[in-house]
Amino acid sequence: MRITIIGSGNVATHLSAAFKNEGHRIMQVYSRNMQNAALLAYHVGAEATDNMDNITGDTDIFIIAVKDDAITAIVPQLIKHNKLIVHTSGAVSLQQVSDLSTHAGVFYPLQTFSKTKELNFLEIPLCIEGINEDITKQLEEIARTVSNSVYRISSAQRKVLHLAAVFACNFPNYLYAVSEKLLADNQMSFDIIKPLIIETADKIRTHSPAKVQTGPAIRNDEQTMQVHTQMLNNEPELQLIYQLLSQGIIKNINKPNGDK
Amino acid sequence: MRITIIGSGNVATHLSAAFKNEGHRIMQVYSRNMQNAALLAYHVGAEATDNMDNITGDTDIFIIAVKDDAITAIVPQLIKHNKLIVHTSGAVSLQQVSDLSTHAGVFYPLQTFSKTKELNFLEIPLCIEGINEDITKQLEEIARTVSNSVYRISSAQRKVLHLAAVFACNFPNYLYAVSEKLLADNQMSFDIIKPLIIETADKIRTHSPAKVQTGPAIRNDEQTMQVHTQMLNNEPELQLIYQLLSQGIIKNINKPNGDK
Repeated sequence: MRITIIGSGNVATHLSAAFKNEGHRIMQVYSRNMQNAALLAYHVGAEATDNMDNITGDTDIFIIAVKDDAITAIVPQLIKHNKLIVHTSGAVSLQQVSDLSTHAGVFYPLQTFSKTKELNFLEIPLCIEGINEDITKQLEEIARTVSNSVYRISSAQRKVLHLAAVFACNFPNYLYAVSEKLLADNQMSFDIIKPLIIETADKIRTHSPAKVQTGPAIRNDEQTMQVHTQMLNNEPELQLIYQLLSQGIIKNINKPNGDK
Repeated sequence: MRITIIGSGNVATHLSAAFKNEGHRIMQVYSRNMQNAALLAYHVGAEATDNMDNITGDTDIFIIAVKDDAITAIVPQLIKHNKLIVHTSGAVSLQQVSDLSTHAGVFYPLQTFSKTKELNFLEIPLCIEGINEDITKQLEEIARTVSNSVYRISSAQRKVLHLAAVFACNFPNYLYAVSEKLLADNQMSFDIIKPLIIETADKIRTHSPAKVQTGPAIRNDEQTMQVHTQMLNNEPELQLIYQLLSQGIIKNINKPNGDK
């Protein structure tokens, strides 16, 4: 396939590298910043531009990997080429693109990307949605060339998935940062707790998290929770987070389908 | 070394198996429940008992791995043997044991154990504390036979470490459970989000979590946060958790040493 990439951030970088590795041709890379466009284009053997007028129709699919609020401004500039146009956002509905194009779709990789950490793209779930069955099938085929986990996900589902990802990724990472700071403030290395963090995440490969909950809250160990709350007296926000999350865990135990 | 294990739960099980594997001798296993004592004792080639009066002094160290509030009741029954006595709790201070015994110490493995999941014990951090330098050194030596990560941690530090572990392990696991439920309620498999969870945890091996925070809060993407908040209108507790954790992330950005 011939692929044109709009954007040069983390998603654009990982996605175009994965396509290139699987033998697709990256035709052009656009970025508002010519240096960023040139750097990515160089890596994937494409032409770089910082001017949307230079984007040609010599491609099979436009992949828009820019900030959410910039997507709808990009689409009108691509319609004239009559090619597939997909965005890669978890939060933008298909309709926001399909109102503008009859060749619209979504190609959403569910992963946290950093430019400095290598990833095996084949393991990244790709969430696909097309404006019609024909386009959905085309996108599925393309997706399967770079990933072993391809899912058909509607815009309504994707919205929930994006929210679930905030709970499953962004918030745990913040809590890791909290624990790192607690340790540093008491002359302990973050290293000491890393095996615990990794094992906790690893457990979900084979266990439902609701069924392997550990800690004072699930044991309803009120004495420990009280000690912990007192230790956070000087950090009222953390104290409140501690109480709310503990209450959430306790509430889950009491549900009819709860499993301790 | 000759080791006597008081308790038959997850910590007792993993710890005695690790000692056995490294060539130590497990002498006796005590549990209030004879069946549990017998099962563990069988696995590690020890004698089982459900009666503390049957525990003999034919050992080098007593390892108490029972519920926190049962520890101080156990210690007086072991003092007469004049051997090392350690507990394995994150939350109980050394003093609670050392007030009772002059051979007291702590041997706290920082990990989340489940009986059904295998662990490489050598990678589990062991936190050591002794009532004097001589006992600390003995405990360090014993610890190093089963773990590559042995730390000297004071009772004051261990208290913080235990709190940090709640933030780094128990709370993230609860948030995984929340995301699993959000997905299930919308006909999506938890599988789709597992690679994201595992990658997020894996990242901390090489990156400080504060420096790799992603998501709407760190971008100060108010529109997305508002949409997410509205989606949780029927779950006021989750809504509050969403807001508090997002505020925590935003607050961290604004700190002088914050790094986006």
